[in-house]
Amino acid sequence: MSGTGEDAVRGYITAWLTTDSAERTALLERCWADDGVYTDPRNEAVGRGALAALIAGFQQMQPGAHFVLTSGVDEHHRMLRFGWRMLDAQNQPQLEGFDIGELDDSGRLKRITGFFGPFPPVPTGWPEHLVRVG
Amino acid sequence: MSGTGEDAVRGYITAWLTTDSAERTALLERCWADDGVYTDPRNEAVGRGALAALIAGFQQMQPGAHFVLTSGVDEHHRMLRFGWRMLDAQNQPQLEGFDIGELDDSGRLKRITGFFGPFPPVPTGWPEHLVRVG
Repeated sequence: MSGTGEDAVRGYITAWLTTDSAERTALLERCWADDGVYTDPRNEAVGRGALAALIAGFQQMQPGAHFVLTSGVDEHHRMLRFGWRMLDAQNQPQLEGFDIGELDDSGRLKRITGFFGPFPPVPTGWPEHLVRVG
Repeated sequence: MSGTGEDAVRGYITAWLTTDSAERTALLERCWADDGVYTDPRNEAVGRGALAALIAGFQQMQPGAHFVLTSGVDEHHRMLRFGWRMLDAQNQPQLEGFDIGELDDSGRLKRITGFFGPFPPVPTGWPEHLVRVG
């Protein structure tokens, strides 16, 4: 395919929601590069097969948990961002975060880097010129 | 150097605040990889010299404009994020955003990808399974 970042993200999130293994792999073949790298603060998956296994493990560990998008897809220079929320099987919010994606020349994701929760606070003791607001 | 992501980010932001060309280059030599790539929605700079020139151009176009950090540095798998605010010479806020950084093995930034403003809203008409919240 040679789609947009939005196409790739929609396919990618749908893969996280898809419990049928063959169907999930077919989705990832369209939106995820063969050697694509997924990381978040707790996980790393190198290659499409590793990502498929990570998703399967997530679904087994937390049955019914799922993601929804909380933003559109904002893209420049083949880099993109989007926000998401993780909900449990009872639709209670469990975690919010955002992902940064990088697209390859075919429009597939070759990297997703996830960040969880709000940004950390500014540390105390940083030099004034870095944090001065007025 | 082989510093932390926080060290690199502090040096990088200080470089944006440094108007002396030699001093700025010396800072970038410590925190920015030779072939590091900077992009934001409006700009691209490939290599340390190109970044130094981009910063100099910014300072000439908007004298007295400067950045402050609005968060600490959150890092995993040599990827990091931090928030910032751009202020004009009168310390009036002009723009907020965040940067995603990638560190090389020596702890220098080999990529910064900037995003401006809030995330875009969820487009209307997306499939319900992607945006359903309850």
